Order: sequence, then C-alpha cells, then structure tokens
Amino acid sequence: MLDFVMDEHIHWRRDFHPSDKPVVSLLEQRKEPYQTTLMRTEEALMELSSRLKAGSVPAFSPRYLGHMISDTLMAANLGYLATILYNPNNCSYDVSSTSTELELEVGKQMASLFGYDPERAWGHITSGGTIANYEALWVARNLKSLGQALVRCHPELFHQHSAMQRANLPLGEVVDLMAALKSRGEFAALREETAQYTGSHAGLGKLLVPASKHYSWVKAADILGLGQNSLIFVPVDEFFRMDMVALRTKVLELVESETPILGVVAVAGTTEVGAVDALDEIVALREELESERGVGFYLHLDAAYGGYARAIFLDEDGEYLDLERMKSELDRTGALPLDVPWPSRSTYNAYSATPQVDSITVDPHKLGYVPYAAGGIVMKDRRVLDMVSYFASYVFDEEEIAPHLLGSFIMEGSKPGASAASVWMAHRVLPLNLYGYGQLLGQSIVGAQEFYTAVEDRVAFEVLGVQFAIEPLVRPDLNIVDFALVEVGNSSLKETNKLNSFLYDQCSYRSGPVYLEDFILSKTVLERKTYGASVDSFLNRLGIPEGEWQSEERLFLLRSCMMTPYLTSNLTFERYCQRFWNALERHLSRFVMERKLSSS
Amino acid sequence: MLDFVMDEHIHWRRDFHPSDKPVVSLLEQRKEPYQTTLMRTEEALMELSSRLKAGSVPAFSPRYLGHMISDTLMAANLGYLATILYNPNNCSYDVSSTSTELELEVGKQMASLFGYDPERAWGHITSGGTIANYEALWVARNLKSLGQALVRCHPELFHQHSAMQRANLPLGEVVDLMAALKSRGEFAALREETAQYTGSHAGLGKLLVPASKHYSWVKAADILGLGQNSLIFVPVDEFFRMDMVALRTKVLELVESETPILGVVAVAGTTEVGAVDALDEIVALREELESERGVGFYLHLDAAYGGYARAIFLDEDGEYLDLERMKSELDRTGALPLDVPWPSRSTYNAYSATPQVDSITVDPHKLGYVPYAAGGIVMKDRRVLDMVSYFASYVFDEEEIAPHLLGSFIMEGSKPGASAASVWMAHRVLPLNLYGYGQLLGQSIVGAQEFYTAVEDRVAFEVLGVQFAIEPLVRPDLNIVDFALVEVGNSSLKETNKLNSFLYDQCSYRSGPVYLEDFILSKTVLERKTYGASVDSFLNRLGIPEGEWQSEERLFLLRSCMMTPYLTSNLTFERYCQRFWNALERHLSRFVMERKLSSS
Repeated sequence: MLDFVMDEHIHWRRDFHPSDKPVVSLLEQRKEPYQTTLMRTEEALMELSSRLKAGSVPAFSPRYLGHMISDTLMAANLGYLATILYNPNNCSYDVSSTSTELELEVGKQMASLFGYDPERAWGHITSGGTIANYEALWVARNLKSLGQALVRCHPELFHQHSAMQRANLPLGEVVDLMAALKSRGEFAALREETAQYTGSHAGLGKLLVPASKHYSWVKAADILGLGQNSLIFVPVDEFFRMDMVALRTKVLELVESETPILGVVAVAGTTEVGAVDALDEIVALREELESERGVGFYLHLDAAYGGYARAIFLDEDGEYLDLERMKSELDRTGALPLDVPWPSRSTYNAYSATPQVDSITVDPHKLGYVPYAAGGIVMKDRRVLDMVSYFASYVFDEEEIAPHLLGSFIMEGSKPGASAASVWMAHRVLPLNLYGYGQLLGQSIVGAQEFYTAVEDRVAFEVLGVQFAIEPLVRPDLNIVDFALVEVGNSSLKETNKLNSFLYDQCSYRSGPVYLEDFILSKTVLERKTYGASVDSFLNRLGIPEGEWQSEERLFLLRSCMMTPYLTSNLTFERYCQRFWNALERHLSRFVMERKLSSS
Repeated sequence: MLDFVMDEHIHWRRDFHPSDKPVVSLLEQRKEPYQTTLMRTEEALMELSSRLKAGSVPAFSPRYLGHMISDTLMAANLGYLATILYNPNNCSYDVSSTSTELELEVGKQMASLFGYDPERAWGHITSGGTIANYEALWVARNLKSLGQALVRCHPELFHQHSAMQRANLPLGEVVDLMAALKSRGEFAALREETAQYTGSHAGLGKLLVPASKHYSWVKAADILGLGQNSLIFVPVDEFFRMDMVALRTKVLELVESETPILGVVAVAGTTEVGAVDALDEIVALREELESERGVGFYLHLDAAYGGYARAIFLDEDGEYLDLERMKSELDRTGALPLDVPWPSRSTYNAYSATPQVDSITVDPHKLGYVPYAAGGIVMKDRRVLDMVSYFASYVFDEEEIAPHLLGSFIMEGSKPGASAASVWMAHRVLPLNLYGYGQLLGQSIVGAQEFYTAVEDRVAFEVLGVQFAIEPLVRPDLNIVDFALVEVGNSSLKETNKLNSFLYDQCSYRSGPVYLEDFILSKTVLERKTYGASVDSFLNRLGIPEGEWQSEERLFLLRSCMMTPYLTSNLTFERYCQRFWNALERHLSRFVMERKLSSS
C-alpha cells in the first residue's frame, strides 16, 4: 500500500503539465553538487535511523506497558504518509481543499461520537489536547465576559434577576441573547466590551477542576490571563474521580456568595489513573441549579484520553446502547467477555451524559491510535465561535461552515492536513461505534482488567529471602493500571517509594536503551496535597501507616497504560504475565543485592 | 532511501525479542476480520489518494507562484516519514529520547542562526508560527508583570527610579533582579504576585506591532488576556516596512507619559509583501532609550517567514558576512548573480541586528522547506523560562537544559518528534549558512527579483482591443512579489479590484481543481485603514486617483511567493514567464468576453 501511495504521488507530479522539462535535468543530476547533496542526505538518514532505533520505545509490543501510546493503526499511518507528500496546510483552504474537507468531516464524526448534533456542533483537529483545552477555556472565558458585559450594558434585560443570577447567567441564556443582539446588529459593539478587547478579567470568576486534572489546566489559567489563583481544585474520591459531594458544596457556596463561576472541568480518563468523573451527576447538578435557581456554569469535558472510549457504548446508528445490550454485544463480538466486570455503572452513566456538556477535548493520538500530532476539540453549539473569531462578526448564513474559514475559528495557524487525513482514514476503517473502535478498545480494556486482577491476586514474591507484595491502586475505569510493590514488613513510605523508583529505573529509558528491556513501564507520583485521603485504603493495603503519608507526602507508583489490544487471549496473557513476574523478580533481586552491597 | 527506512523499521520491530510470537498469527491473518480490515484500509486509501490528487496544489512546480509553500526538501521528507513510524512524542522524554535530543540540537542551531549564544539561548519547535508568537507574548507578559511586581513589592530597589523608569524597566534589569532574588530564595514568592497567578493585567501596557502584522498578533492579544485594545498598530512606509518615525514618536510619547510598554514586535518577511522591518533601527532606538533615559521594552522579531533568510548572510562559522564579501560569494557559488540588486542596505542591516532582540519566531515549514507542521521559537536568554515554567521554580543548575524537561517550558503538550527529526535532517543536509540554505534561498530570491523586473518592464497586454497594464507593488525585500493589472483608461479602483479578483479566481482553486491550472497565484487584500498612504505611489502608477482609495478602501492584489528555486537560469525563467503572460492573456480575454456578454 505504501508503494501504491508513492506511485500515485509520483504520477500526480509527472502528469501535471507533462511537457514541462524536469526541474533538475539528467545532466545536472550527474554533476557534483547534486551527487554531494544526495550523499549527505543518505548519510544523515543513516544517522537518524541509527539514533531512532537506539532511542525509540517499542510501543508496538505487548511488552510495552508504559505511557499512553501503542502501535498505531495501519490505516492512520498510511493516511499520514500519503498526505504528507502533498503537504497541505489546513489553515488555508487555497492549499488544502481536500484535507480541510477531511478535517471538517472528522469534526462531525467526533461530534456524533459524543451525541452532539453534527450540524449544530463544531469540531476540529488541534496539535494536541493541551491546545484543545486552551481553546475551550478561551471560549468559556469570552462567553463569561460577554455575560457580564450584557449585565453591565443592558441592565434592562436583567432587572428581574437576582445578584446571584447575574453573577452566573446560564450559558444557554447568554448564547440566545447573543444571537438576538446579533440579529439586531448590536452584537459587535457589545463584544468590544468583553475581555476579548478590554483584557479585563476582573470578576470572571473561578474555574473548578478536579485535583486529578492534567497540568495543562494550570498552564491554561496562566496563558488565558486568568491567573492560576482562579483555579479551585476539587478533591477526588477513593476511585480517583472528582468528589461529587465536594463539588456540590463548592459550587453552592460560590453561587450563594454571588461569586462568578467561570466553569467546571470534568475529566474522562485522568492522566494518572484513567479515572472517569461522574459526568452525569455534574450535568444533573447544573440542571438542578438552572431550573431551581436560574444560575448555570460552563461545563467542559477533558476527554483527551478517554474520549474515544465512548465508541464502545454506541450502536451502528450512533445510539447509546442499553447497558445489558452493550455487554452482550461486546461478548458476542469477542471484544469483551461477559465475565470481565466492565464497565462499572458509574462509567456507563458518565459517558451517557456527554451530549449535555458544552465542549469536549478528545485526542485521536491517544485512544484513537493515530500518530502524533492529532488532538481534537468539539463544541456543542457552533454559535459560540463568534466569541473567538477574529472576524468583525461572522454570520453563519448557511448550515455549513464555509470550509475556507476553518483557520478563522481556531487557536492555531498553519496546521498539517496530514493529521486530519490520518484520523479520517482511521475512522473510515474503524467506525466510531461498538463494532469499530469498540472492538479495539474493548480488547485493550480486557487486557487492563485482567492485568488488574492478576496484580490483585498475585501472591508475594520471595527474592533472596526477602518478601515483596504487589498491590494495584484501584480497579481501572478504563485501561490504566497503577500499582506498587512493597517489602513485606517494611512500612516506611520513603523506602517503598525508593523501591518502586528503583523498579521504574529498571523498566524505562533510565537503565539504557529501552530496546533492551523486557518490559517497559511508566510511573506516576501522587502528591498528598493533591490526592489527600483518596489513597488511604491503598496505603492501608500496602501496610503503610497513615502517619507516613503525612510526613513523606508523595507516593511513587508504577503505571501501565494498557493500550495494546493483544493481551486478550488467555494464552497470550498468561505467557506475558508470567514473563513480567519473572522480570520483576530479576529486578527485585538486583534491588536486594545492591542494598546488601551498599550496607556491607 | 524510503525502502531503507522501511527495512530499518521492520527489522527494528522484528529484532525486539525475536522469540515473541507475532501478535497476529498467520492463521488469524487469513481469517475474515483481518481480511475485511485490510480491504477496508485499501479502499479508504484509494479514496484518500483520489481526493488528494484532485484537491492538492502542485507546489513542487515552478508554475506554482502562490502561497508560502514549495517543494519540500527530500531530506526533510525522509526524516519525517522515518520518524513517524516510531511515533515519538517530544512532550515526554520517556517516549522520545532520540527525537527530543534532535529537537534540542535544532533549537541550538536556530539560536546560532540569529547570532545568539546557543548555550544561553533556548529554542524549540512549535506547531507553527502562531503558537510561537503566543509563546513569546506569554514570556513578555509575565516578565512585564514581574517588573511591576518588583516595583510594587520591593520599592526599596527603585527609590532612585523616576516614575517613567518604573513604568518601563529595561528587560536586562528585570532578569538580573530575578536571578538575584532567586539566589536568595525570594523569587517564588514574588512570582506569585505576577499575572501568572493573579491574572491581573491592569497596566501591563501597550504592544506595538506594525500595521502589516500577521493576524495571529490580534488573536494573541485576546488569548493572552491582554485584550485587542492593548495593541497599537504602527503604520508602514512606502516599502511596507514599519515606519520608523511613527514608531519612535509613539514610543517616546508612551515613555514620557509614563505608560507601560509591554513590547514591540518587528517583522522579517510580512505575510502580504515579505517586507523586512528595519530591526537595526528599532534596536538602536531601544539602546538609546536604555542608555539615555533608563527605560526599555521587550523586543520580539516575528521572522516566521523571513527567519531562514538570515542563513544567506552567514559564513561557515556563523559570522555575519561583510556585504561586499557576501555578494561576491553568492555570485561565485552561482546562487545569486552580482547584477541582481539584492539585498538592499536596509535588509542587510535589519538581519545584522537579530542578536539584540529578546525572542524570534521562525518557521521551518516556511523558508526552511520542511513539511507541516514545524514552527519555531528562539529566546535569547533562557533564564526567562522561569516565567512560564509550571514548576515551583526550576533552577538551571547546569549549562544544559535537562532534556526530559522540554515539556515543562513550552506552551504545547504532546508534540510530534517527527517534526523535529525532519528539521534536523534538513539542517544536516543544508547547513544554516550561505553555502547551505543560502544557496537554496538565494536562488528563490533571484527568481523573485527577476519576476519583479519582468512585471515592471512588461508592456501593456492588448486583448480583444482592450489594453491592460501590469504593475508590481514594490521591489521585494525577500521573495514575494505582489502585483495588479489595470485596464488602461479605467481609473476606477472598484473595477480594478474586480479585474484582479477575476484573475485570481482563474488561477486558484476557485476555478476548479487547481491541478488543471497553468499557473497558480495567491491574493492579498490591503485595507486602507491598515495600509493608509503606503500604497499611494502604486495607485498613482496604476493611474488610479487618490479619491478612489478613500472611497473603495481596499486594494485587491495578486501575490506570488516565489519559493521555487527553479526559476533562476535565464532559459527556464524566460520560458515560464512567456507561458505566464500567455495564460494571463487568456484569462484577460475571458474577462473581456464575459463583460461583453453580460452587457449585451
């Protein structure tokens, strides 16, 4: 297929005005400068290849149980390689008419994935989830500012509102008012009263994010000019999901004190643990506030990691499946046997609520299995684009967004058409439903759930007379398994962190070229100020007393994103699992020996 | 070489634990699901290829005289394709040890390109120039805010400063004070008083940008929370460079009124015209202010387009060449004959001043001839990274930046190692000096200068009894030629715009698949409110009276970025030029005929 791609491209070049002479004649090709350049290119390529081979991670192998990467889809790779030869730039339709259209198609597919109406929503590819998060906050900030400008400049519209309501106008109300002003030709003037022009963020309010948030939210608050102090970190519960009681308390406190809330961010697939926040409960909280008190907030879902997993819940028409039906279909198709306890009711309910959120970050280069860089953002109501467009005031006259305007509604400028084509190819081969991506992700989740069980059931390792236990952190909502080893009888958290840090060093680039490793893991460090009491039961299982957590303040964990779909058959799983235990034992014995050496 | 790349990669996979069974057995490969997926992939690829062929621009051909694209370097393409197979993510060193190192090497090369000390500077790849501009403004904003926090929290340090000086502390002073506070352990607390935490932008001041700026600066002011009202647009002169008298007047006015200046942005290679601002004069203005009044401002160079052109001015040791020496070397090497009147003294002087600016945007995917997406940013003094790092307060203990921390000092998150490898390959084959990139860019500039002369010298076209003149806008500082046609005797600007708009429609995607076109152009529209009197002499040459500009307010131009290096030999140039005139005549006759038809 790669040959096909190259042939197609070569002939495309040749057939463009075939009578034009070659730009480099055969004579010139035989001359010294051309030959030297060719030689230098070959030399450079040889060096690059050697370095890549030495320093790349074999994410394609089931032995790679580390970061959020895996083998990428062949279709996606081919789409990328084919398109890069034509080098389109989706910032300008003039030079990317095909790939811009592919990007808009992908945007609609992502909208449908989350249950949005693709004709009213707006989605596109970004260079990553970080930029997508910035873009969402950009929209949220300018919309919030518009709400405040409305209150300030059109007090007549709000004389029946309480101060509490004026501080937190429901989003739908703001967007509808915006549309009304626009039809009266009064929108442009009002927009000039917003932060987009004035740069004033006084009283835009607080952004509530779970303690488990990706660090891009901290950068986002800085970059978007809100300041890190505008963030409120909501604690997580024992499942490492945002604590709903704490969120409710905080939101009500802000509402009642007439403090503006810029928005709430929920996460589907946290970076550390892969936890899925109870989105349905956040949506219910917002509905309750809107209907009972007439106040609202912007709601963003950071599903950079977990977004694609919604495909598992969809039938071929994009309908959210009944839980029993879904499980039986997963079993029937061989993706996920009935005896695997997934999904939890909480995860199932969380994904059902995505159609109600205002915007969603979703990265094809994570659970979409496409190469870097391809992040994505989807917004429920494309009318909000007027708040980020650099146009005087763009009017969507028609249903369709004019494709040549893509560059006008996004944060980035030049962007590779190849990413969009790569995602388009992936979606083409694996539709965004249970029978497409659902099969791939189902298998990945089976591997993770079985690995969790294997770690949970694993009896202690005995190495050179020392016993080590292994414990998983929590049953994963998706496919990330965190775990730690502990020396039996050693209840020091400091020592336990050292042990796991040592093991990580053995299973990562730190011990030399990862190519030589038997297994590759990643790590994560949970800080007490962020994770508080959520790790109590885990520490308890490790036999580490509470006081240790107070004094040491950090917990070093080994972390496996089980993106590989190849650990499903019992046979393969058993084989790799046994090898993994063997490798761990080898590393543990080295740990014990080094300790003996250094103490002697 | 592509075969080499594929072979290398396949063996790399095979040789990782060769005794592991294939993840998909031969038996499974023969089964229906595998075969179906294969078929779907082939089908999708066929469709993608067809669509790409129909909708891509043949930028490789000398007939492509449109946007800032051209054929990309073979070395860069190979680097990209080779690396994407390994799919490294330069946000995390764990999964990109090789490509992160390549990116840091490229960062140093870019620093050297501009005359920075690569050991003190900081450079990296971004997804594009837009993000690079945001990143520069992020640094500038937080530094400005730090200066203000210093004045506020440490008044004892500034009791000898005047109010004017306190409003605009010279940057060097701020960074040195920052370093001093850091060594005393007082920096972290001070940083919490800056916009990074407080989100307060009150009085951060004005950002001066030329009227010819890229629109990303307008978005930047919005996104970074400064608001578009913080921008001051400095008019451009008759060469479409920032008007130095106007800049000086404005800066002095702000300084004297004790108004904070957030910074000044100069452009090397404007989007519309490719003009190079007189950077040396801006640097001199700043030096004068610092030494005579003790005030300063942040200075950023947006060289997204023109940055690579500095290579033409450098010898093999990276020294800035004497003008005569440079011209004779360009002539001797055949890159740019002595009789081509380039560079102007202004352009030569402008490029000499880059070592004095604080940060520079430079896009490899423009004049670096590498595929999308590869922008870049370089900062002169890496100590400023403390103002954007999300770390508590990172200390550069060593000379080297720890490569695994790359992700902590940038705006983006996940980023493709393939871009970095692609740029690295290009720099490897074409060093950043007169003998490397200088040869390629010299040839591109020759083509543009000759095209300019050809347009200037061209006698009127006579088509179906109607005469049309063609006029170039201005001799290009680099390689972008803007021009317009005018019907002789028709002095209406509205009609002239219509004519050129018609011609653009004939030479772009608007007339159907660009593949069928003889020549492909881009366009630009100059607005009166932005360009004011700078187009007066051009309108005069077109025979359009001044009043037309006042009433019509926009000027539609045809625009050719002459990135192709293949229009240098006289023979080739003549041949293509003649064909171009023929194509224009054909379009003009269609214009005349359509007009006749519609009036009859």
